[in-house]
Amino acid sequence: MIEEIQKRGSLLSFREDIRVMDCTIRDGGLMNDFKFSDEFVRNVYKACVKAGVDYMEFGYKGSKEEFSSDEFGPWKFTSEADLRRIVGNNDTELKISVMADVGRTNFREDILPREESVIDMVRTACYINQIPAAIEMMRDFHKKGYETCINIMAISNVSEGELDEALELLGQSEVDCIYLVDSFGAFYPEQIRGLAKQYLAIAEKYNKVIGIHAHNNQQLAFANTIEALTLGVSMLDATITSLGRGAGNCPLELLLGFLKNPKYHIRPILEVVENDIPKLKAEGIEWGYDIPYMLTGQMNQHPRYALKLVGTDKWTKFVDFYDEMTREV
Amino acid sequence: MIEEIQKRGSLLSFREDIRVMDCTIRDGGLMNDFKFSDEFVRNVYKACVKAGVDYMEFGYKGSKEEFSSDEFGPWKFTSEADLRRIVGNNDTELKISVMADVGRTNFREDILPREESVIDMVRTACYINQIPAAIEMMRDFHKKGYETCINIMAISNVSEGELDEALELLGQSEVDCIYLVDSFGAFYPEQIRGLAKQYLAIAEKYNKVIGIHAHNNQQLAFANTIEALTLGVSMLDATITSLGRGAGNCPLELLLGFLKNPKYHIRPILEVVENDIPKLKAEGIEWGYDIPYMLTGQMNQHPRYALKLVGTDKWTKFVDFYDEMTREV
Repeated sequence: MIEEIQKRGSLLSFREDIRVMDCTIRDGGLMNDFKFSDEFVRNVYKACVKAGVDYMEFGYKGSKEEFSSDEFGPWKFTSEADLRRIVGNNDTELKISVMADVGRTNFREDILPREESVIDMVRTACYINQIPAAIEMMRDFHKKGYETCINIMAISNVSEGELDEALELLGQSEVDCIYLVDSFGAFYPEQIRGLAKQYLAIAEKYNKVIGIHAHNNQQLAFANTIEALTLGVSMLDATITSLGRGAGNCPLELLLGFLKNPKYHIRPILEVVENDIPKLKAEGIEWGYDIPYMLTGQMNQHPRYALKLVGTDKWTKFVDFYDEMTREV
Repeated sequence: MIEEIQKRGSLLSFREDIRVMDCTIRDGGLMNDFKFSDEFVRNVYKACVKAGVDYMEFGYKGSKEEFSSDEFGPWKFTSEADLRRIVGNNDTELKISVMADVGRTNFREDILPREESVIDMVRTACYINQIPAAIEMMRDFHKKGYETCINIMAISNVSEGELDEALELLGQSEVDCIYLVDSFGAFYPEQIRGLAKQYLAIAEKYNKVIGIHAHNNQQLAFANTIEALTLGVSMLDATITSLGRGAGNCPLELLLGFLKNPKYHIRPILEVVENDIPKLKAEGIEWGYDIPYMLTGQMNQHPRYALKLVGTDKWTKFVDFYDEMTREV
């Protein structure tokens, strides 16, 4: 009954190439300046290990010259000591990832040789014009022994030709994995399928892995993730209860419920949802789908326009925000 | 870049055949025994008219012999007088729909000849084994002059062969429109596409219209709706802020943001979201995506298992519920 072209796997089979990346702390940290308790980070880590999650991204490798540790919690910097306080030597199947932004990381000093670190993968998130700088960073990380990954952000404002050129550059670079990122939560599944095919063509040509990082502004993060997966995208970012910037990410509990590989278990993630997430909410951290984020997604705008209203009485003035956004764009 | 087979329309074009059906009162009434204030119903009606929504479903035509009007509000019965109190003679472009369940409606008496009513469409929701009874009702409604529609419920537990047989029966009947319904919020977009093709084959053969009514248990109601739409499904059910049973429906504000026909306007719907929805929430009505509904959706179970926990302290015992559900199914 169900016919699809270029489909990989079916609803009953599972693909050995799938890898799930939990970004709860790294993306969620954008909502509380990375000030998570060690207990929370440890519980997420333990749950990910038990759930069979493949990678967990702990935070950014922010430069201490650029950012103040008074202002930001440990996961803005993700020092080796902070990591080891949580994971010890990480004698588990789970791999550890950190994110290093172009221009905001002293990458030559702050990323140690892999044999001195518990980190397995270093990712760079960059805008399309920063790709040459990101490739230079990747070369350094690769030489140091890490798995490497580049997330090209904000591609909903990039032309198809530019994107093709960027993907060719990345294809020819050392990077292991290239991410399709929906920074603004603006893409519909149809567009994600088109983009996934474009990324996968590069992956086949240069033997790369393709990942997807979706945002939930239009309640499409999960749908877009599994649509990309169906076409062959294999690294899947998700966060517990969507915790992440603005409308948040693909919910990990939805993704694990979909994946058929018996190595994945949803129950440990539900434990965190039940026991740890309410504490975060009690601390006043707010995230997840809501009308202002929906509007920025629909209008293909940065969520910053909505984020600036969080915690103010303007948050629920949906009509005013709509009028403001439709005047501006 | 974007290639799809059997796609109708594109992201910039719009299809003249699309019709949006607001079910806020009818599906939402399942969460408060249909006890909406007249003010709320009137505001939803006015907003739908201004927003360019094509149909609004006000409620059920429940039999007063079956159901007590002490227990249920007016929209369980949707009398002509109740309707006219809200819409007058409905001198608008918006068409009015009511739902008549098999075995729960005195349809021969309670559905007036169309010329005596402001109602334009009568829909029947039925299980697959009730289709012969539903067809008999449709014949009566059709003769009385109404547009008619059948929603086949709970098809995620029906075999493909049975479904084909049911669709053939409906194809040969007088019914104008047949709905693909995801009662349990269990279907993934891939499955919805397969089902949509199956329904659309019948539509082409017998000149019927196909609709979709999705539930949001897995945050897929909007995605599934627009995927079905892309293949040719043209009647689209949605509710303001998802208001509906359990995890709720496809959010109308997301759907209108997607549709490109300039006759649709999101702003009047945002006014209801801003001004009227908070009052409903203050009354204690709870709906929308949450973990217990996610679990029933993932397990292809009726939401009743989750609904029975609403308002109890078991609601947030996600792990217990998961354990209970995995033992039972």
